[in-house]
Amino acid sequence: MSEYIEHDADGNSVGIVEKKLFTFAAPPDRLTLDSGVKFGPITLAYETYGTLNKEKDNAVLILHALTGDAHTAGYHSNDDDKPGWWDIMVGPQKGVDTDKYFVVCSNILGSCMGSTGPSSIDPGTKKPYGMNFPVVTISDMVRAQRQLMDHLGIEKLLSVIGGSIGGMQVLEWCVQYPDMVFSAIPLATTTRHSALAIAFNEVARQAILADPNWKKGDYYDNGRKPDLGLAVARMIGHITYLSDESMRFKFGRRLQDRSDFSFNFDADFQVESYLRYQGKKFVDRFDANSFLYITKAADYFDLERQHGAGSAVEAFSKAKAKFLVASFTSDWLYPTYQSRSMVKAMKKCGLDVSFCEIEAQWGHDAFLLPSARLSALISGFLDGAHREIRK
Amino acid sequence: MSEYIEHDADGNSVGIVEKKLFTFAAPPDRLTLDSGVKFGPITLAYETYGTLNKEKDNAVLILHALTGDAHTAGYHSNDDDKPGWWDIMVGPQKGVDTDKYFVVCSNILGSCMGSTGPSSIDPGTKKPYGMNFPVVTISDMVRAQRQLMDHLGIEKLLSVIGGSIGGMQVLEWCVQYPDMVFSAIPLATTTRHSALAIAFNEVARQAILADPNWKKGDYYDNGRKPDLGLAVARMIGHITYLSDESMRFKFGRRLQDRSDFSFNFDADFQVESYLRYQGKKFVDRFDANSFLYITKAADYFDLERQHGAGSAVEAFSKAKAKFLVASFTSDWLYPTYQSRSMVKAMKKCGLDVSFCEIEAQWGHDAFLLPSARLSALISGFLDGAHREIRK
Repeated sequence: MSEYIEHDADGNSVGIVEKKLFTFAAPPDRLTLDSGVKFGPITLAYETYGTLNKEKDNAVLILHALTGDAHTAGYHSNDDDKPGWWDIMVGPQKGVDTDKYFVVCSNILGSCMGSTGPSSIDPGTKKPYGMNFPVVTISDMVRAQRQLMDHLGIEKLLSVIGGSIGGMQVLEWCVQYPDMVFSAIPLATTTRHSALAIAFNEVARQAILADPNWKKGDYYDNGRKPDLGLAVARMIGHITYLSDESMRFKFGRRLQDRSDFSFNFDADFQVESYLRYQGKKFVDRFDANSFLYITKAADYFDLERQHGAGSAVEAFSKAKAKFLVASFTSDWLYPTYQSRSMVKAMKKCGLDVSFCEIEAQWGHDAFLLPSARLSALISGFLDGAHREIRK
Repeated sequence: MSEYIEHDADGNSVGIVEKKLFTFAAPPDRLTLDSGVKFGPITLAYETYGTLNKEKDNAVLILHALTGDAHTAGYHSNDDDKPGWWDIMVGPQKGVDTDKYFVVCSNILGSCMGSTGPSSIDPGTKKPYGMNFPVVTISDMVRAQRQLMDHLGIEKLLSVIGGSIGGMQVLEWCVQYPDMVFSAIPLATTTRHSALAIAFNEVARQAILADPNWKKGDYYDNGRKPDLGLAVARMIGHITYLSDESMRFKFGRRLQDRSDFSFNFDADFQVESYLRYQGKKFVDRFDANSFLYITKAADYFDLERQHGAGSAVEAFSKAKAKFLVASFTSDWLYPTYQSRSMVKAMKKCGLDVSFCEIEAQWGHDAFLLPSARLSALISGFLDGAHREIRK
């Protein structure tokens, strides 16, 4: 998410890749959501890299965060100036080695990145769903991904990997489909969204709802979107992805293109200018309603409540995967203590867990940034899992 | 700022108090601001409690934070159901003992609480200033307060006390008018606003600017104010006044008036309901333009830049006061390391400094909440200062 960090450019790319679509749950076979609503048809956008071996034991599922998409690595065309969002980690000889593994990246239900979400056309009305889209949960997203796995002929995943909201999906996979998950890597995540995290999401949503162009979600045909509200929502998010330390380092009190204060309401400071830019840029690529729905799903996420009657131990007693859990020292959105408590519950269930708190100043964003440590951890963990799954 | 904490009710109240107004800098004697603008007339709202002794050595000036006012203690009428914002600290036999000290509380220039600010009538146009109000700084606020002290016949302040933006004013008083300040108590504050603090203020401002009812600040005669934008701004602020720990304790994931998720965009969680309530309540008492101006003043605050050519030691070399500096463990808006660095600079200047980091889970808000520790510290410090000033 941080544009100020150069991605590594080691040339090990999966190359040109293609976004694919999988549609299922067409009426009458609709998917039953946690809300009780039966919903369909559902399309998931996904990408795959590498090759599924004939034992079908090398499939790795990567799950993205709030505003991500299926385009995890490589380029969509030769003119593409930016690779997928986790190209530093996914590719030949990278942390997730596409020479060894068949990597599947699935966009989430509710997103606006090719999958069915509030901006999709409701076949019933021939108009975008808007707020008629059902509220979906992390479980629902995983339930949909399960259908994609069936479609791809994958009965067992060597590993499921994701950070942040992607990490929630990882945890959900492990308890909802324990027999399908051999190993799992939840990064910078939590088993239940904290009050602080809910608070930030709620304020971001209120910023969108306050925008008169939002029009109760029915803005798709108006020519005007709730861009100002969505930009504010994104700016709030951005602050939570960074840290006091990283902002001090990255911006400090440096002024933007000026040597003295403006004494007006221009962006005096670099940090103001950065946030305004991030907000403006975001509205071109993301749908405000999807932002509402996905943040709500994150707020609802509570593995303990849904799968353990309030107990994390009870919830993880359903899991069978071996885990690599990683947190980042300066992540104050999903702080290390939340990972530690997850690890403690996993261990109480006798699960095989490795835990690593990675020293990083970049806040929550750290899981997306180049880290030799994280790459080596993931690579080693996957190798071990691959050896084991073949036993 | 937290409505969930009961104020202590020990009956020691200053009783019924009265807001007073002092107007100065009427043209041609206008006040020269940091921006270079000459501005006036200026009215400051203030209150006083206790009695100025004949030696005039018992005056204590209390300075408020962003949305505070001159009404620090006591009640405005018998029907008043809430006392002033720091009634727990200011009154007979309290931390700031009004039996001993003559307490002056001054509202800040730029506020909407009785002093001249963007919502005041510009005598030139007979209309509210709106965005024609000049950008003011913490120095400008202090410069105006200095005029109030002259008016009250106070040549030397026994102490200047304030937290947050009030603490910035305290620091500014000490370096701008060193001969007038015998002692000072900056609480939960900083010598320069961090990138993180600027970021939150900027997003809050953008929420206001995004509200179409803001109309470039010219909304006073429209019947419609930028309430939605201001409410979002306030919600953002509220999160920064709390802490992960206090929100976990106060709200956790408790649902609001329901036993299960709504599966819509209602406020499911107590923390959402709390924030929405805080936002709505705020717009009745505060002016959006004042919010813009005061947050900008906080962002501009940089004691080191303005008074020390970038050096805190250089800046504090101008001060003569003895200091009591206090920070709060869970305050992540103005974390303890910022107070420590301030204290280090003060000590390098040979100043008499006491520093205390107070264990508190309530985040930045802690300085406003009942704390026997803080009351005792302030009371003891003021007693000592009063003995010394008489030597």
